Amino acid sequence: MEFIINKNLLLENLNNVSKAISSKNLIPVLAGINFSLDSKGLSLTACDNEIMINAFINKKEIKDIISEGNIIISGKYIVEYIRKLTAEDIHFTVLDGTKVLIKTNHSELTINGMDSSDFPKWEIEKTVNNFELKVNEYKEIISQTLFAAGVSETRPIFTGVNFSAEKGLLSCVATDSYRLAKYKINLEKDIDMNIVIPSKSLSEFNKLLNDNKQKTIGVQVYVSKIVLNYENIIFQSKLLSGTYPNTSQLIPDNYELIFEIKTNEFYQIIDRVSLLNMDKEKNTVNLVIKNDIATLTSTSPELGKAVEQIEITKNNNIDFEISFSSKFMLEALKTIKSEKTIIKLNDRLKPIIIESTDNNHALQLIVPIITY
Amino acid sequence: MEFIINKNLLLENLNNVSKAISSKNLIPVLAGINFSLDSKGLSLTACDNEIMINAFINKKEIKDIISEGNIIISGKYIVEYIRKLTAEDIHFTVLDGTKVLIKTNHSELTINGMDSSDFPKWEIEKTVNNFELKVNEYKEIISQTLFAAGVSETRPIFTGVNFSAEKGLLSCVATDSYRLAKYKINLEKDIDMNIVIPSKSLSEFNKLLNDNKQKTIGVQVYVSKIVLNYENIIFQSKLLSGTYPNTSQLIPDNYELIFEIKTNEFYQIIDRVSLLNMDKEKNTVNLVIKNDIATLTSTSPELGKAVEQIEITKNNNIDFEISFSSKFMLEALKTIKSEKTIIKLNDRLKPIIIESTDNNHALQLIVPIITY
Repeated sequence: MEFIINKNLLLENLNNVSKAISSKNLIPVLAGINFSLDSKGLSLTACDNEIMINAFINKKEIKDIISEGNIIISGKYIVEYIRKLTAEDIHFTVLDGTKVLIKTNHSELTINGMDSSDFPKWEIEKTVNNFELKVNEYKEIISQTLFAAGVSETRPIFTGVNFSAEKGLLSCVATDSYRLAKYKINLEKDIDMNIVIPSKSLSEFNKLLNDNKQKTIGVQVYVSKIVLNYENIIFQSKLLSGTYPNTSQLIPDNYELIFEIKTNEFYQIIDRVSLLNMDKEKNTVNLVIKNDIATLTSTSPELGKAVEQIEITKNNNIDFEISFSSKFMLEALKTIKSEKTIIKLNDRLKPIIIESTDNNHALQLIVPIITY
Repeated sequence: MEFIINKNLLLENLNNVSKAISSKNLIPVLAGINFSLDSKGLSLTACDNEIMINAFINKKEIKDIISEGNIIISGKYIVEYIRKLTAEDIHFTVLDGTKVLIKTNHSELTINGMDSSDFPKWEIEKTVNNFELKVNEYKEIISQTLFAAGVSETRPIFTGVNFSAEKGLLSCVATDSYRLAKYKINLEKDIDMNIVIPSKSLSEFNKLLNDNKQKTIGVQVYVSKIVLNYENIIFQSKLLSGTYPNTSQLIPDNYELIFEIKTNEFYQIIDRVSLLNMDKEKNTVNLVIKNDIATLTSTSPELGKAVEQIEITKNNNIDFEISFSSKFMLEALKTIKSEKTIIKLNDRLKPIIIESTDNNHALQLIVPIITY
């Protein structure tokens, strides 16, 4: 393998695939990036146990291809080294099958490679489903749901986001069992699907997306994995196995009280009121609604007490009291882009529903904290 | 104690003194900020075992003083809470001597305080020396020397910077015994002094300085401490006890070879060449000078080899070979602001001297690595 390539082009693609390199991996080839050059172009691939990222550089974009071939190079060193080079072009040569010489006008790096035949292969499965998402739709799913997924290894299914589709409606749900985030998107195709994608994979793929919001992401669903196609990148992730609980019955149809509150002000108040409990796992805030005033209180026996008031608009004149985690409420409020937020309540033991005034595709749910 | 004060004014001063709060401290009052209000104004003080920071707000700047008094408030919570407030004015009231009520239009925080009589007192000592530095001079001392100080607790004297003065020349030296950084400043006064200031104190004080480079810092030296006066801030630090080694004889008068090299290019080359050894403690780079070419090489038995070349201008036609730590060389080169750097060598066992072409007040020294 020998070729000459523009430094910035190579760096951009190496940066993209390097997100799949796991530094903790004990299998040496998984710490590397597989370079494979054939008559079509240069294919760069990296993978860990969960995801695989491939970037393809068309031969037209490569300055000179002297000979085809392939080799694995340590990802950590190659990306850093290419980044630090100031030359415009880089000359790659595989020497005696195991070493790579990376040359510019004034510099030479000889780095040991690994045999490409040891690199994991793409396993071919039959496609179950496929559909398309716009970049902005994907980003919206991530920002509206991902934070609510669980981190606990005891219930691995909750560490993913549930993508289910029925009659052309895609519903994305994340929950850690204490709160839930849901976001819906209309698909152009009528597909039937119910999969759970690991949060980490969704978040890694999100980093590969640039700001061109109208670009399309091709999604192919297989029995045990998902493949996302975007520009010259192919991103593959395992799916989580197991059954995701049916969360739709958690969301009531009727509410005892619905009120509207200014989003930013409500956020700031909770942020301040909860300060004395910021180091505690349960940062409980108490909300008392009397007439058109919401009073928020947080008490720490050792430190003191914080109280704030804010005006609200109610749908009836019921007074109410409920307690919740300030952390969960703040994270839910961050997803609301409208000036006002709708809060829906049933009784003090039932979930709190948080919605935007201008987006009925998104919903946040928080389980209250029971205080006596 | 009861007063009304502008939020931003209080926050700025709390931010400054809070740098002396140590979160690790076991003495409760040291986690607090002492508020002391008298007929002159509000004095805010925080301290740990090494430093004490005091900020004074003149009564003219306080909106209303209703009653004088003092109390200690937990630093961590008070600074965060004041920062999060959006109100313009804040009303402070000490309730029954131990609680503080912090009130704005819509918010109320009641926080437990501590008795000010438990707060450490400023111990008065006789002044030994005093002089003045400009802010830009102080910042230059920090950027030219601080990084070279040791971190090891086994030789505590090396964790400080040695400030010695003789005949109006202040000489600041930091060393970890493998490299040394020196910076000299002409003082307006002829004083005699030899003290060692803890690096951490110097760095904390540096954070309090704003960009007004011509402002003056008043320095008062005592037997076991130093006091720095800047704007409305009084900063006090312990001095390190013990004798700082005399480092002046380490710097030779004559050199076998002196050469000039482009600073940025030299920096980038060492940064790239040393990449394969970036994780190792001794990241050795070998420098071979032949005619007007310097060849830099770094070898890692497991990974490979990097080689680069760069032109230099020598003062004679001696060829040379020496090895050094890339980390130390990079850190030394960062202090050089001139386009070219002067490197002075004696033999491959003797220290390497690194100097700017336009600032003879600064000097960097690196002990070579002996390779066979």
